Amino acid sequence: MGNNTLLERRYRVLGHNSPLFYDKPLNLVRGEGVWVYDADGRRYLDAYNNVPHVGHCHPHVVAALCRQAAILNTHTRYLHENVVAYAERLTAKFESSLAMAMFTCTGSEANELALRIARECSGGMGVIGTAHAYHGNTAAVIQIGSVFTPPEKRGPYVRTVPVMDPYRDRAGRSDAELATAYADDVRRAIDSFAAAGVPFAGLLFCTSFSSEGLPTLPAGFMSQALAHVHAAGGFFIADEVQSGFGRFGSHMWGYQKLGVVPDIVTLGKPMGNGHPLAGVIARRDLVERFTSGNMYFNTFAGNPVSAAVGMAVLDVLENERLLDNALEVGRYTLAGLTALAGKYELIGDVRGAGLFFAVDLVRDRKTKAPAAEQARRLVNLMRERGVLISRIGPGDNILKIRPPMPFSRENADHLVDTLDGAFREL
Amino acid sequence: MGNNTLLERRYRVLGHNSPLFYDKPLNLVRGEGVWVYDADGRRYLDAYNNVPHVGHCHPHVVAALCRQAAILNTHTRYLHENVVAYAERLTAKFESSLAMAMFTCTGSEANELALRIARECSGGMGVIGTAHAYHGNTAAVIQIGSVFTPPEKRGPYVRTVPVMDPYRDRAGRSDAELATAYADDVRRAIDSFAAAGVPFAGLLFCTSFSSEGLPTLPAGFMSQALAHVHAAGGFFIADEVQSGFGRFGSHMWGYQKLGVVPDIVTLGKPMGNGHPLAGVIARRDLVERFTSGNMYFNTFAGNPVSAAVGMAVLDVLENERLLDNALEVGRYTLAGLTALAGKYELIGDVRGAGLFFAVDLVRDRKTKAPAAEQARRLVNLMRERGVLISRIGPGDNILKIRPPMPFSRENADHLVDTLDGAFREL
Repeated sequence: MGNNTLLERRYRVLGHNSPLFYDKPLNLVRGEGVWVYDADGRRYLDAYNNVPHVGHCHPHVVAALCRQAAILNTHTRYLHENVVAYAERLTAKFESSLAMAMFTCTGSEANELALRIARECSGGMGVIGTAHAYHGNTAAVIQIGSVFTPPEKRGPYVRTVPVMDPYRDRAGRSDAELATAYADDVRRAIDSFAAAGVPFAGLLFCTSFSSEGLPTLPAGFMSQALAHVHAAGGFFIADEVQSGFGRFGSHMWGYQKLGVVPDIVTLGKPMGNGHPLAGVIARRDLVERFTSGNMYFNTFAGNPVSAAVGMAVLDVLENERLLDNALEVGRYTLAGLTALAGKYELIGDVRGAGLFFAVDLVRDRKTKAPAAEQARRLVNLMRERGVLISRIGPGDNILKIRPPMPFSRENADHLVDTLDGAFREL
Repeated sequence: MGNNTLLERRYRVLGHNSPLFYDKPLNLVRGEGVWVYDADGRRYLDAYNNVPHVGHCHPHVVAALCRQAAILNTHTRYLHENVVAYAERLTAKFESSLAMAMFTCTGSEANELALRIARECSGGMGVIGTAHAYHGNTAAVIQIGSVFTPPEKRGPYVRTVPVMDPYRDRAGRSDAELATAYADDVRRAIDSFAAAGVPFAGLLFCTSFSSEGLPTLPAGFMSQALAHVHAAGGFFIADEVQSGFGRFGSHMWGYQKLGVVPDIVTLGKPMGNGHPLAGVIARRDLVERFTSGNMYFNTFAGNPVSAAVGMAVLDVLENERLLDNALEVGRYTLAGLTALAGKYELIGDVRGAGLFFAVDLVRDRKTKAPAAEQARRLVNLMRERGVLISRIGPGDNILKIRPPMPFSRENADHLVDTLDGAFREL
C-alpha cells in the first residue's frame, strides 16, 4: 500500500493536524541501530531521534522487555524487586541530594508532576520558563511551553525569560556578563510575579535549551540565576528529556555540564529506548512533603516491565561505553560540520557537545538573519538523500542533529558528506 | 530477599507515601491468566485488576509486543500502518459520530487531553464532575477528582454533583424521578457556573461511577442530564478507564449501557493489557477544531509497538469471546455474591454487571450506615486467603471486585467460597 493511501487513511482517523515530519512523509517499517528502513526498503541514517537512545530495537533492551512482559506486568501498589532496583540504580547516577524517584510514563507527565511538586512545596504558582521552550502537552505544562503557546494563553502564572543566544547577542560581552544578563532576566521575572501578587514556585528549563537553539553557554551560566530562584523561595526544575542519559558524553545529565544541582529533575524520551517510561528525580524532602498531602499514583508507571527496560538501557549505556562514544564521535562530527562552515556562507555557526549539534543557518553572516526557508529545504533534501535531521530555534533556521548514541565515525562521515551534497544542491 | 527488606529499600527510593495495597503488602513475581504468584510461590486469584484485561501475560499480547518491539518502535511523526490500522479498528467499535482517535500513554493523559479539547472547543472552563470521583493525576484532572482533592483545592472551574446512590437515597422515588433528580443536580451546577461568570465546558464522569460505589442506575438515567449539558453549550466526556473494553459484557463501552452517546470518550487501563496505552475517541469536528489551533503531539503515544499491543488485546477479546464470558460468568458470580447476602447481615447490597461487582457493607440494614472497618478487614482477610479484591465508595465500605475478563465459573466459585470464609472469620 502506497504512502498516499496510508496518509489518506491516517487523515481520516487521526485527523489532518496530527504532526508529520517532512514535506513527503516517511513510512518507516524497520529500525536497527542508527538505521531505519522505509516501506520500499530504502535505508535512512537516523541523525534525529533520541528516543531510540541506545539504537533502534537494541537486542538487549528488546530481550529485557520480552522476558519481563512474559512473566509479570503489574503496578506499584504491589511490591516488586524491579522498580526498587531500578530506582536505586537510577538515583545513584545523581548527586546525593537527588535521592528519590517518582515514575511516570511520559516526559509531559514528568514535567506536570514536577510543577505540582514545586507549586505544592513552595506554596506558590508562579513558574518561569524560557521563551521558545517546549516541555510537554498537558494544560499546565503547555502554558510554560512557549513554542506552541501564544502569550495570551499562558495565563497569570507564567513568565518567560528571553532565549540566550550568545552567537547573536553577545555584543562584546564577556561570559560573566552574559550570565549576569540572564540572571537579571530571571530576577525581573521573579519581581514581576511579586508585583502581580503571585507567589513564586520556581524555574523550569531544558538543560540543553534545545528548542531554543542549543546555545553554547558560558561556564557558570546558571549559578547566579539559580541563586535568585532559591532566594525567592522557588525551586529549580531541570528538564533532561533532551539532554539526559549521557547525550553530551561528558556528563550523564545536562545540568551537570552547566555546573549546577537542581531541586527536581525530569526524565523522558531516552529513558526506555521507546518504551513509555519517564520520571521525576527529586530531593527527598520535596517528595515526602508533596506525597504526604497529595496521593500520587500512576497505574502504568514504574511497572516491572518498564523497570526492566529502563535497567536494560542503563546496561547498554555502560557496557557499550556510549558516553565515551558520544564524546569521541561527537568531537569528530562537530569538526566535520565545522569544516562545512568553511565552504558555505549559509552556515553562520556550528555548535554542540557530545552527540547533539546545531547548524545555525543565516541569510547574511553580518546580520545573522535566520535562513528559515533554506533550513526547511535542507531538512527535506537530507531526507531525500537518506539522512534524517530536523530544525529548531525561534527563527526555525537551525538544523537539529541528535543521533542515537551508538553513532560511529563512519556514520558521522556519511552525515557530513550527505549534508555537503545537500548544501551543494540547495 | 524478604518483604521487609524490599519494603525498606522501597521506602528509601520511592518514599513512604507511594501507595501500596493491603496491611501486609504483596510481593508479586509472576502472573498468568487470572492468577498471580508471590515471592514465596503462593498463588492468588486476581479479582481486582482490570489492567491485565485479557489475563496476566496473555501469550498473544506478549507475542505481538515482542514481535513489533524487535522490528521498529518509533513515533507518529512518521507514517506507520499499525497506528492507522489500530485507530480504524478501534473507532469502528464506537458510534459513527465518534470517528477520530488521539493516542496517549495513560488514562490521566487521556482525561487531560479531553478537558483541553472540551475547554478549547466550548470556549469555557467550567467542568462538572461527580463527588467522590477519580480521573487521574495531572493538575487539571486532579481538580475534578474529588476523592483525593479537598474542596479548597478544586479551584473556580470545577463543580461536583452528589453521588447517586439508589440503594441508600431512593426514598421511594421511581427511576424517572431519580434521573430527574440527577439532572437537576447537573443543571444546578451549570447555573452555579453561570452565576459565577464561568463559561461552561462540560461534564466528565466515569461511566460505571466506579469510585462512587458502582451504583445500579435506572434506565435512561443520563439522558436528561446530558440534554442540560448540551443546551448549555457543554460537552459530555465519558471516562471508560474502568468500564471500557467490554467490562459489562453486554456492551463494549459503559456509556452504551447508559443509553447515551458522548462527545468525547477517554480510554485507559485495559487498553494495552498493562502496556502504557490510552487515548481519546471523539467527534471529528472537535478533534479538527482543537488540533487546528493547538499542536498536540505525544512522543510515545500510538507508536507501532503500542498499536500492535492494542490490536492484540482486541484480537483476544474477539477470539476468546470475552464479552460473552463476562456476561455469562458475571451473572453466575453475581448470583453467588447475592446468596452470601442471605447469610451475612453485614451485606446491605450486592450489585454489578458483567465482571464488575460491588458488595456494599453496612453496620445496620435499616440505617445502611457504611461498615468501613469491616470492609478494610475483609479485603485483608481475602488477601490472606489468596484472593485479591479492594474497596470503594464515599464510605470506604464497598468491596470492589473486578477480575480480568477470562474469569471462569470455577474462579467465581473460588471467589465466593473464599469470601464466605472471610465473612465467617470476621
